[in-house]
Amino acid sequence: MHHTEKRIKRIFKLAGEDVGAIMIFNGDEPHTDVNFYYVTDLTKGLFERSGVVIYPDGKGVIITSELEAESASRSPMEKRFFRTRQDLRRMVREALDVDGKVGVNYTDLPHSLYRDMKSAAKGIPFTDVSKALSDARMIKDEVEIERIRKAGKIATDALEVMKNELHEGMLESEAAALLIYEMMKRGATGPAFETIASFGENSAEPHYTAGSRKLKKGDYALFDFGARFERYNSDITRTFVMGKADKKHREIYEIVREAQQAGIDAIRPGVKGPDVDAAARKVIEKAGYGDRFIHSLGHGLGLKVHDGGGFSPRLEMDVKENMVITVEPGIYLPGWGGVRIEDDVLVKKNGAEVLTSFPKELIEL
Amino acid sequence: MHHTEKRIKRIFKLAGEDVGAIMIFNGDEPHTDVNFYYVTDLTKGLFERSGVVIYPDGKGVIITSELEAESASRSPMEKRFFRTRQDLRRMVREALDVDGKVGVNYTDLPHSLYRDMKSAAKGIPFTDVSKALSDARMIKDEVEIERIRKAGKIATDALEVMKNELHEGMLESEAAALLIYEMMKRGATGPAFETIASFGENSAEPHYTAGSRKLKKGDYALFDFGARFERYNSDITRTFVMGKADKKHREIYEIVREAQQAGIDAIRPGVKGPDVDAAARKVIEKAGYGDRFIHSLGHGLGLKVHDGGGFSPRLEMDVKENMVITVEPGIYLPGWGGVRIEDDVLVKKNGAEVLTSFPKELIEL
Repeated sequence: MHHTEKRIKRIFKLAGEDVGAIMIFNGDEPHTDVNFYYVTDLTKGLFERSGVVIYPDGKGVIITSELEAESASRSPMEKRFFRTRQDLRRMVREALDVDGKVGVNYTDLPHSLYRDMKSAAKGIPFTDVSKALSDARMIKDEVEIERIRKAGKIATDALEVMKNELHEGMLESEAAALLIYEMMKRGATGPAFETIASFGENSAEPHYTAGSRKLKKGDYALFDFGARFERYNSDITRTFVMGKADKKHREIYEIVREAQQAGIDAIRPGVKGPDVDAAARKVIEKAGYGDRFIHSLGHGLGLKVHDGGGFSPRLEMDVKENMVITVEPGIYLPGWGGVRIEDDVLVKKNGAEVLTSFPKELIEL
Repeated sequence: MHHTEKRIKRIFKLAGEDVGAIMIFNGDEPHTDVNFYYVTDLTKGLFERSGVVIYPDGKGVIITSELEAESASRSPMEKRFFRTRQDLRRMVREALDVDGKVGVNYTDLPHSLYRDMKSAAKGIPFTDVSKALSDARMIKDEVEIERIRKAGKIATDALEVMKNELHEGMLESEAAALLIYEMMKRGATGPAFETIASFGENSAEPHYTAGSRKLKKGDYALFDFGARFERYNSDITRTFVMGKADKKHREIYEIVREAQQAGIDAIRPGVKGPDVDAAARKVIEKAGYGDRFIHSLGHGLGLKVHDGGGFSPRLEMDVKENMVITVEPGIYLPGWGGVRIEDDVLVKKNGAEVLTSFPKELIEL
């Protein structure tokens, strides 16, 4: 069985028995739906205004324009090519002619396209299956894990270059540009998200990206970034010190490092998300910085950078084998600086496997 | 009057008199709506699940989470900050309490968010204003023109570096990475779209991006790319020859160059889009390559790379002052190679101003 068939069958299991078909359609950029690529496994091409209809038996039909014929040929699925809007409407209507409801992803489908599809479907009832899609994607198969692993390797290799090139006077924006360059040279199609390079006091703002601050002696240099490889993302954070680290640099760093290890050590199938978060958070609280760890411990990772689920005090989730989740505690001291250490972790039978191997000892540059 | 007020008033003029308010909301990434940034002029911050409600008098109110308070402070508009979903629903309901219909952008709003807003609005009638928004954005104001100009300058400066660094054996992907690096070093937040670097026979495919083809003597090297600066995009194409150009290289290149100039020369307020397209297309047809110019002459450019309108045989459009449109004819000979030359052009009272100044003589490397 092709791995896309397995993915499709899992989606239908989660969607419920009254769903006879699921329709996933892309709008125009930026309104594409990662689930289109998930069920077709098409890693190249844009497929604007194209879609796929999938069925409980694991099969599906790609409905796309003739212009995408070459890109679409890489999928083993059945394809239908339209020239006109009328063709498209007819193909949608035919593909949806099933018993039961048609599942639609209300979260990613633009409202205008929903209206077009509703009209093409001529009275066939729609139901929202966004949760089933998102939940299915949380459990990764071998193909997905290999892509995330490769995206992680590209990011850590780029960080190795960054470590060697970083120097006093370097701009944050220059450092961010270099990371992206080194990732793309290694096969990334681009960064997974807006690259964060924050120096000194800027490292205390988790949402800061990269500006015109120059690196100075005694600064933390925090990099939070990832690569996109065959549509899959990595996400890693490391915090260096420019020059000699002082006592406070070391103290804060070691607390975060210990918290991250505690989080990773708590991961195994069957554990609850909030308990993993608590394992890391407790270390930071005990050290007296509980109110300076101002975000969740981690998030699911895959075709999206926030791919559903995660480790958070308020997010009920059962940790399962083959989930990929980030572990990224931090301590942020406004006006002074912050430390975050983040890795991507694969949940295995007996515990966690770290997919982003880069040293975690405090690095002084 | 602040420039955002002018933008808002123009939108309402296009939307019609029965529209009493317009609501623009972002979903989660990637489902943000450029119109949010257009009417608030917020160039930093992401503003997921945030929105703005605007009124015919040019005023508006930003509705966003408390977490975005700092980013939102850069806008002169009124702001309301929500903590809970209930707060958000109440704020939306209050902001929409106007006479007439509420305009909504059906093209960019995810269906799930449409449903949330419809329920929060408790019976207030919605109408689609996506066309009014897109049409309003086609006429650029001074602030927008300066940003596109800067984005154009960043791209041409990066291309200058590329020209000097390009060498036999260089990979397409390496060249694309270098262009992005050089643009980001100059202040771009990233590329405007997926950077195209196509060598040799790959230059004959307009949709090809960048792969592992190495540059060889006698290849065309085609670069189609742009910078994003303060959310605005540039888009430029140049085609070089690696080594000495032969007769055919020169012939094809000169036809495209002449066609592009004819297109640019045809631009002035009041002319029709298809006539500009025809001015360029005629040159290529006369030279006997009419069937090898397989796309439109150009597209509107701004907050989106395809920002509405353009020069195409089938797109009825009146060219107006302060539109920014690309002019990009090409000739593609499958298996051999292709040439495209593209500039971004500002429509002025007496004709076109080219915003992307880079030499157009055939460059041999």
